Amino acid sequence: MNNYLSIKDIDSLPEWVAMARKLKEDPKADKELGQGKTICLLFFNNSLRTRLSTQKAAMNLGMEVIVMNFGNEGWALEYGDGTIMDQGTSEHVKEAAQVVSQYCDIIGIRAFAGLAYRDEDEDERVLQSFKEYASVPILNMESSVGHPLQALADAITLAEQNTKTRPKVVLSWAPHPKALPHAVANSFVEMMQLQQEMDFVITHPQGYELNEEITKGTKIEFDQEKALKDADFVYVKNWSNYNDYGKVTCKDPNWTMTQKKLGKAQFMHCLPVRRNMVVADEVLDGKQSLVIEQANNRTYAAQVVLKKILTTLNDQ
Amino acid sequence: MNNYLSIKDIDSLPEWVAMARKLKEDPKADKELGQGKTICLLFFNNSLRTRLSTQKAAMNLGMEVIVMNFGNEGWALEYGDGTIMDQGTSEHVKEAAQVVSQYCDIIGIRAFAGLAYRDEDEDERVLQSFKEYASVPILNMESSVGHPLQALADAITLAEQNTKTRPKVVLSWAPHPKALPHAVANSFVEMMQLQQEMDFVITHPQGYELNEEITKGTKIEFDQEKALKDADFVYVKNWSNYNDYGKVTCKDPNWTMTQKKLGKAQFMHCLPVRRNMVVADEVLDGKQSLVIEQANNRTYAAQVVLKKILTTLNDQ
Amino acid sequence: MNNYLSIKDIDSLPEWVAMARKLKEDPKADKELGQGKTICLLFFNNSLRTRLSTQKAAMNLGMEVIVMNFGNEGWALEYGDGTIMDQGTSEHVKEAAQVVSQYCDIIGIRAFAGLAYRDEDEDERVLQSFKEYASVPILNMESSVGHPLQALADAITLAEQNTKTRPKVVLSWAPHPKALPHAVANSFVEMMQLQQEMDFVITHPQGYELNEEITKGTKIEFDQEKALKDADFVYVKNWSNYNDYGKVTCKDPNWTMTQKKLGKAQFMHCLPVRRNMVVADEVLDGKQSLVIEQANNRTYAAQVVLKKILTTLNDQ
Repeated sequence: MNNYLSIKDIDSLPEWVAMARKLKEDPKADKELGQGKTICLLFFNNSLRTRLSTQKAAMNLGMEVIVMNFGNEGWALEYGDGTIMDQGTSEHVKEAAQVVSQYCDIIGIRAFAGLAYRDEDEDERVLQSFKEYASVPILNMESSVGHPLQALADAITLAEQNTKTRPKVVLSWAPHPKALPHAVANSFVEMMQLQQEMDFVITHPQGYELNEEITKGTKIEFDQEKALKDADFVYVKNWSNYNDYGKVTCKDPNWTMTQKKLGKAQFMHCLPVRRNMVVADEVLDGKQSLVIEQANNRTYAAQVVLKKILTTLNDQ
Repeated sequence: MNNYLSIKDIDSLPEWVAMARKLKEDPKADKELGQGKTICLLFFNNSLRTRLSTQKAAMNLGMEVIVMNFGNEGWALEYGDGTIMDQGTSEHVKEAAQVVSQYCDIIGIRAFAGLAYRDEDEDERVLQSFKEYASVPILNMESSVGHPLQALADAITLAEQNTKTRPKVVLSWAPHPKALPHAVANSFVEMMQLQQEMDFVITHPQGYELNEEITKGTKIEFDQEKALKDADFVYVKNWSNYNDYGKVTCKDPNWTMTQKKLGKAQFMHCLPVRRNMVVADEVLDGKQSLVIEQANNRTYAAQVVLKKILTTLNDQ
Repeated sequence: MNNYLSIKDIDSLPEWVAMARKLKEDPKADKELGQGKTICLLFFNNSLRTRLSTQKAAMNLGMEVIVMNFGNEGWALEYGDGTIMDQGTSEHVKEAAQVVSQYCDIIGIRAFAGLAYRDEDEDERVLQSFKEYASVPILNMESSVGHPLQALADAITLAEQNTKTRPKVVLSWAPHPKALPHAVANSFVEMMQLQQEMDFVITHPQGYELNEEITKGTKIEFDQEKALKDADFVYVKNWSNYNDYGKVTCKDPNWTMTQKKLGKAQFMHCLPVRRNMVVADEVLDGKQSLVIEQANNRTYAAQVVLKKILTTLNDQ
């Protein structure tokens, strides 16, 4: 594999999940694979899980890790073609991506949606620019459109926890005080579309539809109670309005996940999570919550991806 | 040892000091002990010595080190129970601590006193919350109440420099333009209470008493001249008013340490130090100053602590 | 070699360039040299190339690397002698430099010119203070006066690309919206003065003369067209006015480098570069641009310097 930009780069979800579960039993088994290789993780936004789990995964593979907060440690980047750079940006991504490629073997990029201009966000300007100009593989550590490392960790968690032949999985929108990106929800939906033996339904207030190009073919149910009926796994997540782009047009607390609504289902969330806003304490502190294990699986999701990239690099 | 939260976690100060002095002769002797182990250092406040010496100590033990400035790289943490998180905090420490535990074997935490609410500071909210929710050992890199790595380094320095059967050690308050925490003074007092063969006296302006629960049984002398008489070691440190909590109610320059006041004693300070405010240039630049060696011993203090934690981990 | 503070620390440019080109063929050949050694990179200013390439070079040599953004992670430093530190600075460089020296084997320092006070900048206050008080070798990662790692990378690039017996090299000033330091231009001039077999000319608007102590003996031509005639290599760089210190007194777009002006010469720039301000897109995107290779050579420039310092350390 040359890049991990989206869920579409997964050629076989069952195989990847199986590989992750095997790595989890012996995380340092491939310690030789990354010897002498360096990964450079560039953060244009804050991070806790992604920052630490990706470092951990790379170190498990024997790689050297360079972490850089591009925003305040580097230079403000320009992305436009033909721009006369007489304003705030100091360096063009054309140079930055080529240059960073020379100091490492893989580049990880985190750059959130700005939520101001939908077209710009959908272009995944930062991620795709690095992909275009870099000469080494690119790892998406959450772009404006997707968070495929999270969704892969979610797939691992589902596989570990599922006991049914055909479990029911619900993605349930929740209220939040701030405007959040759609990346986690998008990648979760795309990942669920690769699941052969699961029933999947999305529930959210009317008007909070995700990008139809992503959700097409997936069942959407506006009645949360109906959607949650007989659920085995409930993935809760806020996102801002996609149609009235980046706006918070609903904060209805009736959408907050409670133990009563959850029933016997297992609870999932990518974290960080706003307690008693997105989900009640009783759920997070209860035994049906999988959030800590999801976070744990971030390491093995990253490790599968890096292992596949390293294997390709070593074969060249 | 499972955690290093305060001086109370030292089971035998002489043994720890002896171990540090031995490590200092051959810092890489235990290079195998930390192989495959990772420490994650989380900074909620600035740091120079602690940041570098703890990294160095961990690397001497063969560990991998992940450093994170939680404040600007991670998410604002919530500590309250039952809070409806609709304000500025994005993640509860319950999740953060559990999650970080999964990416490393030891967590170091630096979180200073806010000096606004005494009760909150005395609860060591950040440190104790991580201790409560983390599943790996916690290392105190300075909390709102104590700085036990510094005090251990001070004990090493005293042991190296002392030539008397029963030396006299003085903790002498000094003026400072800003309100500073009590952590260094607290831990130094607690460490001195473990010293069998030393005379210890604290001197400060009336009203600048430290927490009595910590100083009880220790001699306090308001007359600095009397206190300093025949001193062998003088540890100078500012702290803000503890009773009128967090206020600067005295900046009297008569408390500044000078060569004349110091006499033949050796000078100690944890650094950073305000020259000519806390202590005169002549003292810091003179031969009786131990401050650089104290800073050097930070590495070996951290290394003893990490060695003890690693040994316990490896025995499990 | 004990320190790398300026181009003057290069004893034989041809030998250093030859060593770099050899290292480039097998960057990990000296992996044993830095075993057990630590370099601490202290950044008082932003960095992309220097940050990553110096880390990479150190890792290639087997060293452990500690990176610290002194500005926001450490304490505000005081440099004055005898200052009563009752204002914004928390720690004197005398302590900081001695202390950091105890945690590592080499210290790298980046501290740009403030461009407010020429005397202060020419003193290279941060770099020289660390050099004075540190007890380990100091590496200049760009000071207020020079950027000798960049100039060494430029020398490597010239050596790799040159095919003439006596090539003509031009340093050509370019307009820029912000006031920039003179460090890169200064070190490039000093490096060119060590070139035995090259013709060198500097061109810039009248009044934009660099420090005469540095340029003395070097040809200066105010007519850019004349200067560029028959050039083999054109190094383009902005700097602010040196005489009207730190001011931007010219933004004349006629000085922007274009393909027409460049002719058949190869184009050089240290990066980051403002496109269509300093140089036209057509040049940067064309085949005559060497900027990406210059950035690549930053790794090998740093590696030569570190190798020389490590060799001296190991001999002691």
